[in-house]
Amino acid sequence: MKPNIVWQTDFSLTWGAVSSMRGVVKQVDRELECYDITHDIEQFNVLAASRELMYVEPFWPKGTIFVSVVDPGVGTPRKACVALLNDGNYVVTPDNGTLTHLFYNVGIREVREIDTTVNRYKGTEDVSVFHGRDIFAYTAARLASGIISFEQVGASYPVEEIVVEDYIYLRAKVADNNIKGIVTSVSDPFGSIIFNVLTKDFNQVGYSHGDIVHVEIVHNDKVYFKDDVLYEKSFGYVDLNKPVLYNSSSNYISIGLNQNNFRDIYQIKDGKDWLVKLSKLKED
Amino acid sequence: MKPNIVWQTDFSLTWGAVSSMRGVVKQVDRELECYDITHDIEQFNVLAASRELMYVEPFWPKGTIFVSVVDPGVGTPRKACVALLNDGNYVVTPDNGTLTHLFYNVGIREVREIDTTVNRYKGTEDVSVFHGRDIFAYTAARLASGIISFEQVGASYPVEEIVVEDYIYLRAKVADNNIKGIVTSVSDPFGSIIFNVLTKDFNQVGYSHGDIVHVEIVHNDKVYFKDDVLYEKSFGYVDLNKPVLYNSSSNYISIGLNQNNFRDIYQIKDGKDWLVKLSKLKED
Amino acid sequence: MKPNIVWQTDFSLTWGAVSSMRGVVKQVDRELECYDITHDIEQFNVLAASRELMYVEPFWPKGTIFVSVVDPGVGTPRKACVALLNDGNYVVTPDNGTLTHLFYNVGIREVREIDTTVNRYKGTEDVSVFHGRDIFAYTAARLASGIISFEQVGASYPVEEIVVEDYIYLRAKVADNNIKGIVTSVSDPFGSIIFNVLTKDFNQVGYSHGDIVHVEIVHNDKVYFKDDVLYEKSFGYVDLNKPVLYNSSSNYISIGLNQNNFRDIYQIKDGKDWLVKLSKLKED
Repeated sequence: MKPNIVWQTDFSLTWGAVSSMRGVVKQVDRELECYDITHDIEQFNVLAASRELMYVEPFWPKGTIFVSVVDPGVGTPRKACVALLNDGNYVVTPDNGTLTHLFYNVGIREVREIDTTVNRYKGTEDVSVFHGRDIFAYTAARLASGIISFEQVGASYPVEEIVVEDYIYLRAKVADNNIKGIVTSVSDPFGSIIFNVLTKDFNQVGYSHGDIVHVEIVHNDKVYFKDDVLYEKSFGYVDLNKPVLYNSSSNYISIGLNQNNFRDIYQIKDGKDWLVKLSKLKED
Repeated sequence: MKPNIVWQTDFSLTWGAVSSMRGVVKQVDRELECYDITHDIEQFNVLAASRELMYVEPFWPKGTIFVSVVDPGVGTPRKACVALLNDGNYVVTPDNGTLTHLFYNVGIREVREIDTTVNRYKGTEDVSVFHGRDIFAYTAARLASGIISFEQVGASYPVEEIVVEDYIYLRAKVADNNIKGIVTSVSDPFGSIIFNVLTKDFNQVGYSHGDIVHVEIVHNDKVYFKDDVLYEKSFGYVDLNKPVLYNSSSNYISIGLNQNNFRDIYQIKDGKDWLVKLSKLKED
Repeated sequence: MKPNIVWQTDFSLTWGAVSSMRGVVKQVDRELECYDITHDIEQFNVLAASRELMYVEPFWPKGTIFVSVVDPGVGTPRKACVALLNDGNYVVTPDNGTLTHLFYNVGIREVREIDTTVNRYKGTEDVSVFHGRDIFAYTAARLASGIISFEQVGASYPVEEIVVEDYIYLRAKVADNNIKGIVTSVSDPFGSIIFNVLTKDFNQVGYSHGDIVHVEIVHNDKVYFKDDVLYEKSFGYVDLNKPVLYNSSSNYISIGLNQNNFRDIYQIKDGKDWLVKLSKLKED
């Protein structure tokens, strides 16, 4: 079977943009199947696009072609590329930081710049604001269909030249049970937030379910949250509206409230300057 | 052909959660087709999930496998189950009240608790917050694909033990034309609301199109709406912004405003304590 | 292969309405594939539905069956129809203005009123508020499946009788470089707005990339925007938050702000009374 194409954008589904991209795919090859991650990535938030790709990518069959179009620089000379990951998946995307998390976490075997003199939907040469449809959808469809090979995408360029953000967005260094990390995601609609602390690392330095952990979230020297929080498997282990620390579905340490919205109540955002400290309660 | 899998959750489509579930299905069997009811069920509102399932279920081919994940108790010892309905459809869901409307309205032939020692996506044993992906999607896909039979889902348990809410949510008793019911749905995006009064029952006690019906909606002894309303086929039979009583698409009596939002204007909610009285105007 | 069915409505995806329509299609023929334009057309905005159809229609394979249900008159005697376009695509829709843009831009070869005595989902005769499911979905599916021919949809009627809005919504007359047009779309989630000025016409009267264009947007004699704006290929040619005039993905002249929301900041709406003037800066 031909590989699935799995999409994410910041276009929203409130107008026909995503449908036009899908129509282009169907014009290339009626057999191709398209699926979505989300079309509600925060507008122009390349790092959110990168992170969402990492969360979802492991759960699709190997060989899947992901298309990510969060592209504040559309129509300017940033590269349009196709990356082949070490696990055999592809990502079709502007090379603008969207590959950050997969670069560190999965690794990129090879990357090619899309040759838009060949790989562009005919008749759209005068449009410069919709590469999602005219270049990314068209190229992904032809690659998925087998009309072009990966080599025919365009010239390869060094993996080292790919635009990537700081490693800190992927993962904090965890040496002991005094952990300093950052908030990496506040996009959960239930309002839970994710830290850049791998649960595996967290457990390795001695935390285990049932522990009470001291949690502080600080931004620009202001403390947004400071409390002693139970580390458990899920929300139901604490009372309604109470915080719990748990292993998120992507295997990072998260904090949330049982049936309430941690992010909104404590006004948490994500980024390098949203710091979290996790530490063991002193034994009395 | 293999049965369709039809989904509903309270996860929203603003992040990759639904996509991860879909990827798991595609890993089990690339041939399976997934469709959606909605992913915008009000968060943790099990009764809304139950109701939406009832509205949509009759319109899919028999044999369809519905997956509903509105699961405030994820990670705690509530049962994960697969119910076989009397009409041949399946529902994969936490057993937490989600089966209420189908239990009363269609009937449940058999129910089995998912044996998660077998029916769990490999490698997710340490995650307790995403049974939608790790247990429900995986089990639904294997059942749809024929990899497991219904018996291999897990041990059956008595249908009488299924968690169901009060019968009143399904249907009011209608003895004469003084009808007392409740508001059962305010989820229509156009702002119409639905009562637990079957149109068939309503007509049987003597109402017919063209009648003026006295309608009162009361909550905690406060009257939210009180007027004499035309009972007709559709909105176009009254002037713009005027109320009309009509047969909803799910064959219950509804009220709405012609091109305006009844729910928002009158601040109506749903539930056992949102009472409606429908009565015949006295002949002068 | 059977034609794709491509949908748009103002129903939203927050409840099961779209799913019920899809289920009806699958009951007619499991092989049929459904795709979406959007289900977030502004409620009752027939002209927005018409416009969105025009934008998306060219990008789907010829023979596609579009279904558009924005239907303020549901249940009243407006016609339900299927139009065959000059390019071979079909549109299944209430005949209420939804065909306006395609009527002018593509042309309609033939139109037939749906005979609902035959083309109606069985058992829904008592429901008058959901023709999307009971008539439009059912008819589109049977047409796509080949169960009925176009002739079996119902009797044809003169193309001249189709309900269409003013030509001005499609396109302004452009005689010289003093252009008077209207705002035709504010639905872009990034906040760019579209004028009824074809880029081809705009270029023909002497504008080219790099020009500074004087733009005024006026509503009821109040000036909402007035500035000299660069005409370029895309947003990246101006500084952050600055306006740029460019060729939209549908080949009309648009204005937007680089990574900011023109529509919201200047409070622009669309319609016949939202006027735009585009003129050349006088050479000094």
